[in-house]
Amino acid sequence: MSRTQVHQEVIQANEDYAQSFSKGELPIFPGRKFAILTCMDARLDPAKFAGLEEGDAHIIRNAGGRASDDAIRSLVISHKLLGTNEWFLIQHTDCGMELFTDEIMGQLLEGSLKTAVFDGKQWSNQEDSSSEHSTEGHYLKWLTFKGLENNIARDVNRIKNHPLVSSQIKVYGYIYDVRSGNLIAVA
Amino acid sequence: MSRTQVHQEVIQANEDYAQSFSKGELPIFPGRKFAILTCMDARLDPAKFAGLEEGDAHIIRNAGGRASDDAIRSLVISHKLLGTNEWFLIQHTDCGMELFTDEIMGQLLEGSLKTAVFDGKQWSNQEDSSSEHSTEGHYLKWLTFKGLENNIARDVNRIKNHPLVSSQIKVYGYIYDVRSGNLIAVA
Repeated sequence: MSRTQVHQEVIQANEDYAQSFSKGELPIFPGRKFAILTCMDARLDPAKFAGLEEGDAHIIRNAGGRASDDAIRSLVISHKLLGTNEWFLIQHTDCGMELFTDEIMGQLLEGSLKTAVFDGKQWSNQEDSSSEHSTEGHYLKWLTFKGLENNIARDVNRIKNHPLVSSQIKVYGYIYDVRSGNLIAVA
Repeated sequence: MSRTQVHQEVIQANEDYAQSFSKGELPIFPGRKFAILTCMDARLDPAKFAGLEEGDAHIIRNAGGRASDDAIRSLVISHKLLGTNEWFLIQHTDCGMELFTDEIMGQLLEGSLKTAVFDGKQWSNQEDSSSEHSTEGHYLKWLTFKGLENNIARDVNRIKNHPLVSSQIKVYGYIYDVRSGNLIAVA
């Protein structure tokens, strides 16, 4: 096998999980009728920090936990077809999305597609003139932000005011503190 | 407090989690340098089925686990700024996204924003002429699909061929079987 170490580890972990899998046939509908929209950040485990079992709730995650068009697509499907009626928007402290801008990301990718080096404050490209690069990054909205509380309030507003979102759905805005594991109410 | 039962339960579960939180200061960079893109489906717990601890890997989730523009935004950030270089695309059996079309979703939402009734095969609106409704659903791409294996292959291809994705990144396509908990290699 030419699998990488990570690939092997994931498949082994999955075999262990499947062997002890005892959930049987869970319904397609989330049992506790709610959804969480949060960041892809590796430090966050929504099932653990919100107390979820398999079958309980929809989890939507992207860079920043932003109320992007795609997140709203998912939320509308979650309510309209699958019955959730409470949504938690959870963004977090120390989020990488506060550390760059569209301009920076466009320039980094124009230089190289390879992983950049972070000096604790900002990223710069490794010296490697032969690597792949692209100007396409300049044409994308990366959904960065400055100011966590305001951003959560803005995203909660976008969701609540979206023409496809029923006014009956409750939308809660929370900060997740990556140092303490705590949720802090914001909006 | 006017909190709903679900809202109370989530906050209580979070207090329990935070009290036993012992992760300390985890770095912003995923320790195991990989990302998972999968569906929001409530039956899936990627941390459990792939063996993850807090800090290990990025998790991106949307309706269908699709390689949407927003998922690719997140993946490119994951590699370029945060150093992941292996990506698992994991879609699953019994996915709701195989059960409707853009046309159906547009019509359902034009009738009502409220949760529709599912008869085991398809959805129909509840009789409720007073509810909110919108034609906006006709203008959205809902990213439904037919045929799980082909869809995974197509989405893996989209990711691999995206101009902002380095050819150095390994991309794996898997089915997650909701009845057994097993991952099955596809692409």
